[in-house]
Amino acid sequence: MKRSLTYKILEKNLLSGNLIEGNEISIKVNQTLTQDSTGTMVYLQLESMGVKHIKTDLSVAYIDHNTLQSGFENADDHEFIKSAAAKYGIIFSKPGNGICHQLHLERFGKPSDVLIGSDSHTPTGGGLGMLSIGSGGLDVAVAMANGYYYMKAPKILNIELSGKLKPWVSAKDVILFILKELSVKGGVGYIVEYSGEGVKELSVTDRATITNMGAELGATTSIFPSDDITKDFLKRQGREKDFKYLFADDNALYDKKVKIDLSDIKPMTAMPHSPDNVALVREIKNLKVDQVAIGSCTNSSYTDLMKVAKILKGKRVHPDVSLVISPGSSNILRMMSDNGALGDLISAGARIIEAACGPCIGMGQAPKTDAISLRTFNRNFKGRCGTKSADVYLVSPETAAVSAIFGYLADPSTFGDMPRVEIPDKFDVYDNYFIYPPKNRDNLEVVMGPNIKPFPINRELKSSLKGRVLLKMKDNITTDDIMPSNAKLLPYRSNIPELSKYCFGTVVDDFYKIAQKNDGGFVIGGENYGQGSSREHAALVPLYLGIKGVIAKSFARIHKNNLINSGIIPLVFKNKENYNKFDEFDELELENIMEALDNNLEINLINKTKNIDVKLIFQGSEREIEILKCGGYLNYAKNLNKD
Amino acid sequence: MKRSLTYKILEKNLLSGNLIEGNEISIKVNQTLTQDSTGTMVYLQLESMGVKHIKTDLSVAYIDHNTLQSGFENADDHEFIKSAAAKYGIIFSKPGNGICHQLHLERFGKPSDVLIGSDSHTPTGGGLGMLSIGSGGLDVAVAMANGYYYMKAPKILNIELSGKLKPWVSAKDVILFILKELSVKGGVGYIVEYSGEGVKELSVTDRATITNMGAELGATTSIFPSDDITKDFLKRQGREKDFKYLFADDNALYDKKVKIDLSDIKPMTAMPHSPDNVALVREIKNLKVDQVAIGSCTNSSYTDLMKVAKILKGKRVHPDVSLVISPGSSNILRMMSDNGALGDLISAGARIIEAACGPCIGMGQAPKTDAISLRTFNRNFKGRCGTKSADVYLVSPETAAVSAIFGYLADPSTFGDMPRVEIPDKFDVYDNYFIYPPKNRDNLEVVMGPNIKPFPINRELKSSLKGRVLLKMKDNITTDDIMPSNAKLLPYRSNIPELSKYCFGTVVDDFYKIAQKNDGGFVIGGENYGQGSSREHAALVPLYLGIKGVIAKSFARIHKNNLINSGIIPLVFKNKENYNKFDEFDELELENIMEALDNNLEINLINKTKNIDVKLIFQGSEREIEILKCGGYLNYAKNLNKD
Repeated sequence: MKRSLTYKILEKNLLSGNLIEGNEISIKVNQTLTQDSTGTMVYLQLESMGVKHIKTDLSVAYIDHNTLQSGFENADDHEFIKSAAAKYGIIFSKPGNGICHQLHLERFGKPSDVLIGSDSHTPTGGGLGMLSIGSGGLDVAVAMANGYYYMKAPKILNIELSGKLKPWVSAKDVILFILKELSVKGGVGYIVEYSGEGVKELSVTDRATITNMGAELGATTSIFPSDDITKDFLKRQGREKDFKYLFADDNALYDKKVKIDLSDIKPMTAMPHSPDNVALVREIKNLKVDQVAIGSCTNSSYTDLMKVAKILKGKRVHPDVSLVISPGSSNILRMMSDNGALGDLISAGARIIEAACGPCIGMGQAPKTDAISLRTFNRNFKGRCGTKSADVYLVSPETAAVSAIFGYLADPSTFGDMPRVEIPDKFDVYDNYFIYPPKNRDNLEVVMGPNIKPFPINRELKSSLKGRVLLKMKDNITTDDIMPSNAKLLPYRSNIPELSKYCFGTVVDDFYKIAQKNDGGFVIGGENYGQGSSREHAALVPLYLGIKGVIAKSFARIHKNNLINSGIIPLVFKNKENYNKFDEFDELELENIMEALDNNLEINLINKTKNIDVKLIFQGSEREIEILKCGGYLNYAKNLNKD
Repeated sequence: MKRSLTYKILEKNLLSGNLIEGNEISIKVNQTLTQDSTGTMVYLQLESMGVKHIKTDLSVAYIDHNTLQSGFENADDHEFIKSAAAKYGIIFSKPGNGICHQLHLERFGKPSDVLIGSDSHTPTGGGLGMLSIGSGGLDVAVAMANGYYYMKAPKILNIELSGKLKPWVSAKDVILFILKELSVKGGVGYIVEYSGEGVKELSVTDRATITNMGAELGATTSIFPSDDITKDFLKRQGREKDFKYLFADDNALYDKKVKIDLSDIKPMTAMPHSPDNVALVREIKNLKVDQVAIGSCTNSSYTDLMKVAKILKGKRVHPDVSLVISPGSSNILRMMSDNGALGDLISAGARIIEAACGPCIGMGQAPKTDAISLRTFNRNFKGRCGTKSADVYLVSPETAAVSAIFGYLADPSTFGDMPRVEIPDKFDVYDNYFIYPPKNRDNLEVVMGPNIKPFPINRELKSSLKGRVLLKMKDNITTDDIMPSNAKLLPYRSNIPELSKYCFGTVVDDFYKIAQKNDGGFVIGGENYGQGSSREHAALVPLYLGIKGVIAKSFARIHKNNLINSGIIPLVFKNKENYNKFDEFDELELENIMEALDNNLEINLINKTKNIDVKLIFQGSEREIEILKCGGYLNYAKNLNKD
């Protein structure tokens, strides 16, 4: 069989299952990464599994999300993660070191290895030819504890790139172009593989920008080949030993193919409020800009920020614009400090903030009321920037920098000659933000501050579930809708009871009161329910509030996994039209669940209020059925440990 | 008469009154400054006064406090201040430019001029020989509107410095030494003037560190002579034209004298929770440190941060320490970036955050539960860092940097040779963060976002006031106790109704409910009531909650002014022992207030619950009595405008 990049890696790492598309397999996990906003949960789970030492080659716990620290909660979380990292043999990355994906690319990522990360932008590592999958925290905890990861052998979507990029067009424009073509649902169920002559036009960090925003396509992950450009990148990072070639076989088997000529692409922007609401920058006239934010795991590489610095050198940030720059890593900040580029940014009037996720996750730098904010980030969901009334446009670093000078959204090709960035032969590498685990870890204890609360654990699934429809929603509900994430809420990522007060906060007020009053119940979603961030809080909080099942037209992959892992049954309508037969507060009953799950039958849903019944389907593996029956992955994993 | 520095400046700027200690005078104000957390109120007030153009030589509106921007509120405030600055002819300093006091020292301060600022650390300008007084926002609004400032001709406390500083001892240790000697009440009622041969041992920024923390002595302000060192400083800043010599006359008249030999001073620290709780660093053994924070208007000059960089060069921040550095200004950040020092800080593992007040005002970087935090800042009040259980020690930059390496509080003189910092001949100056007001300002409007609410206005004073004691407090209650200031609350600085929910939050829970239930009333304080920050919110919020009077053993100067400006009568016990005769919820009545104020009589306070009465004294000028009668300064100023 002619193998794709993905299937080559899966074959190498296969532990169990039949490597045929649609089958559930388990694979060896080489590396894991966590960030702090999902990480506290991961390490609470790891702690409860009673393991002694992680089974991966390498695991890293990054602190990059909750770095503002408006109260004690963030620093307590950092300390808890630091102590857990030391106890279990995990590398700890201190706050200030930078963004997990950028750092992992620089320091640890390895072509053809498997990385599982508790962050939806883990696919950034695909730029390096690494199979890098974002997952719920519990999957990451199990990967560390047991060394494996379960997944369905994926369909492969091949994107063949040809041609060369025009001046002022860069990787961000490529992925925005693809999002325009394929939409935020275009990648669902697929791993995206890039191939073709156009690949050679893209650096590793360009590729990483593209695989990073593969998350916005809904893809499981995205991956580029590992070639001489990859080798060159690793060499400059002082890691040539980690290099390995990885190419797909000629005429590899793909489930879907898309061809893109890079020379067709012009500067693009994703308009409010979805990453696939893409237009040409030049189509949007006279859009006065209030804020420009440059950084994030999508666009904060050395090259990206150097381009920005070269554009801004000797220029002035428009007086009506707040330009804020958050470097991707301490290494990049240091290199730009040493080579004078940081000075150029400061002289132009840019705000330099800590090397961290920062404004991309709404962690500070919320723009003013009704603001127009241009961001080089990956998501522009309504309210994510911290200001509900703001309109966020996603753009390339080039478009961002030029627009910051002009004061309105500007096609960068109107600016003049494109700056050229020389890549240093050797990237600076600083180790002083990393804490490597001690050799002797026998008597280490984890440190839990008062804001860290136990996570909720479900009970065994019942064969019949009753309750009301607590909320009915439209298509494309994001995990940001289910469990909003902003600077005020991120400190409570390890405190589910507190977080629950904000559940579905962008959809309805005081959902938690509705849930409490009705003693839990069901929620109904449209298509692509649960897209966006991988945060399992979007499942743990509904669990805490007594949600028994989610019924939708379709689910986003990671969120569906998270629901199952929490013991909440995700079900789709057999006939999507039936979505219209349900209203909020209808009384529901699910019948014969066990029998249906065991025998792959449809589940009967009775709407007692309307006196009708419709058919639902559970789409999942036998293992996932077992997890549901146990009341979630933690119960399941504990049972496994007992064996 | 042999004149002090202060009296020379007052004489030059005198507009009305008899320049004899204790008399109320008015003086011409040359410059004003505001920061954003007090500034919104100032510009709301200016707006309500119906002025067209400010009457000062120069006024600057800095944005340095609320720079995290967790919601739209901060950015809306920035925009409001920016629009007001343009309308009234004020220079606007964008966020990212740095801390108001550091920037003002670098760019605008002038020896022998008068500066009034709506920030309690405005005395930083005293390092430049400028009479720099921190005041309530309303005073600053009036200074801009009318060009004058009312004050009592002050008593002068002369501190004569001799000798030379020992290696590793710096300006911070000097002011901590003075705080130990004089306490946080030691400067109350005084302006502190420095003189003697020791003055020549101190650079302008050293002097500014000392005058900055004169605020913690309770002094009206502090001032150094303007000499060749001042001239040299201004020359390096490219502002030699702003220089003027200023020396006190030989044998000038002082009300009090203190002599300090600089060579007696060793590295000092202010222990929790007061800046005058000072000990020698070497006396404190084995204090493991969790966080070190370097920056703030006290210690973020070029020299301070360069010393830190030289200490950290080639070293590693201790793994258990979070070292965070907030530069004083964009100029300093740029210079340190260009000369490699910033790179040294990054390589060592420091967190570099925006040039702003930041952690000093609890705006982020709250340490973990029960943390030990060393800070080069000026205040260590309980909870100000954002973590109630943390212990904050104030130290010099040298002590901070060395301790960050060792991981415990360390006397820097144990570290080896002291680093020498070369001062550049010419400081870099960047103008791109400043917005100068346009020439034509006729049709400019201010922009008010939805979080900006009108400030409360009092009614005319009644001759009899009745109500209960809503709260009785101990000595040294700070404005941080009265109106807590932290990252969560700062966004509401222009929203008094929202802020009122947190009034007296460090003293008691839900004071606002107590106040509402009782329809307002009185609060009782001990000595030095209202010390600390100049924020007038500590008076405006009690006004909003119906506080009619504050009865205390003694008041801090600025807060007493703010109470009067809000129309809340501040009264002291004639006999301090009578403090003990009052309990919470006692029913009180003040009799014959008008008669007493008009005829300089004692006011009779009846405790109806205990059936006793005691005498109270109002300490203020005739003008202040008029302000009280009008129901506050805004009503009073409006009346003046009518004339």
